[in-house]
Amino acid sequence: MENLTIVKIGGGVLENQHEFTAFLDQFVSITGNKMLVHGGGRLATKIMENLGLPIRMVDGRRITDKETLDVVTMVYGGLVNKKTVAALQSLSCNAIGLCGADAAVIISKKRMHSKIEYGFVGDIESIDHDLIIRFLTSGLVPVFSPITMDPDGQLLNTNADHIASALAVSLTCCYKVKLIYCFEKPGVLSNPDDDQSVMSEIDLDTYLSLKSSSNISNGMIPKLDNCYHALAKGVERVYITNGNSLSQNTGTKICL
Amino acid sequence: MENLTIVKIGGGVLENQHEFTAFLDQFVSITGNKMLVHGGGRLATKIMENLGLPIRMVDGRRITDKETLDVVTMVYGGLVNKKTVAALQSLSCNAIGLCGADAAVIISKKRMHSKIEYGFVGDIESIDHDLIIRFLTSGLVPVFSPITMDPDGQLLNTNADHIASALAVSLTCCYKVKLIYCFEKPGVLSNPDDDQSVMSEIDLDTYLSLKSSSNISNGMIPKLDNCYHALAKGVERVYITNGNSLSQNTGTKICL
Repeated sequence: MENLTIVKIGGGVLENQHEFTAFLDQFVSITGNKMLVHGGGRLATKIMENLGLPIRMVDGRRITDKETLDVVTMVYGGLVNKKTVAALQSLSCNAIGLCGADAAVIISKKRMHSKIEYGFVGDIESIDHDLIIRFLTSGLVPVFSPITMDPDGQLLNTNADHIASALAVSLTCCYKVKLIYCFEKPGVLSNPDDDQSVMSEIDLDTYLSLKSSSNISNGMIPKLDNCYHALAKGVERVYITNGNSLSQNTGTKICL
Repeated sequence: MENLTIVKIGGGVLENQHEFTAFLDQFVSITGNKMLVHGGGRLATKIMENLGLPIRMVDGRRITDKETLDVVTMVYGGLVNKKTVAALQSLSCNAIGLCGADAAVIISKKRMHSKIEYGFVGDIESIDHDLIIRFLTSGLVPVFSPITMDPDGQLLNTNADHIASALAVSLTCCYKVKLIYCFEKPGVLSNPDDDQSVMSEIDLDTYLSLKSSSNISNGMIPKLDNCYHALAKGVERVYITNGNSLSQNTGTKICL
């Protein structure tokens, strides 16, 4: 099987032009099949503030009413996605921007929660990997924004970390998949306050013990849950790192 | 050769939910290969107003500084494009949203003008029709937003009427192309103040004579210029109509 590298890039890296450029240089140097999944939450927050719209978050998840959905559709599906595609094209990387609604490639379901009304937030139900494989085979580099669609055509705001892991799992059918989560920190930190405390590797037992002793930052928990889900479902290798050293397998290697 | 219908839909139709829904029902009923090109200028203007950004237009063209480019990239490439794609998907039409930067499908050049600094406005240089043909052959329905890219990866705001006619001309290599411009009026009016005065047909001589006697609205002139360009370059049939009667060949037929 051929290799496929899926990289998720977070809002912190996207916002800093210097880091973003460094990241893109690293991304295009990855050999073989590759794709990118991006977030953009910080930029969406900024635009909502500029529009005078209220921002409501619960446990790091954005409560997405109709106006918020319009903003994230604009920011993720338009501004961040098309700027990223154009920047990759300028580096001779044949990027194509997609959201889940395009060719109905990622179908999700509106999140129902007994206590919290998340609004137009989606959880992934299915991925049409045939189309993605056709794109990869023809040399295209898909760039996914975290907007998906339910079967009735309702756009839904969807967690980008989850999209990356769901895409990775879905494509294990045909590729040896490596999944890299890129964010502003150099990896998983044993001390969340010390950027030098990067763990070179973290296995499931260590993670569960850190989690139960609350020695891991809250923001890292869903990310690591996505990593372990991907590994359990056949993804070959998973890393958490920043955007500067994609090709050197630095950062933290996540292991079962 | 197979048939291909290219429909351009303007901002007036997009903004009115009732007209937009009626339009989409008509669009999905078109048999054979089809694609859609949309604008979105009125919505972009509204969002710019909400963001407190100045709006500058010269002869109906938007002066596009950096902030304006961000807004049109968001609104055209994100909000309008993804909402349209999702609405088409809900009608079992396998739409895929694209801008010119995606797979570098439409390359443009920043407009240089001796007197007016248009900013980040692009004029089309080339279209990669191979990719579009592959999409059409596999049953996809491309939905284009009017954002393109120069060879250095600079996004550029581009006239949607022109994109529609350039796509139409480019695809005459492989298809019998019909081009339909849809806007809020029922066709070309012999009296711009009377919506009942739709001309069923307008040939080039008539157009030139109406133009020289100023008996045609200013907004209609670039649209008709695009129509005649398309016909001169091999497009089979061109119509100007509203969104309610796409399949009946109503409105105004444009002829050489």
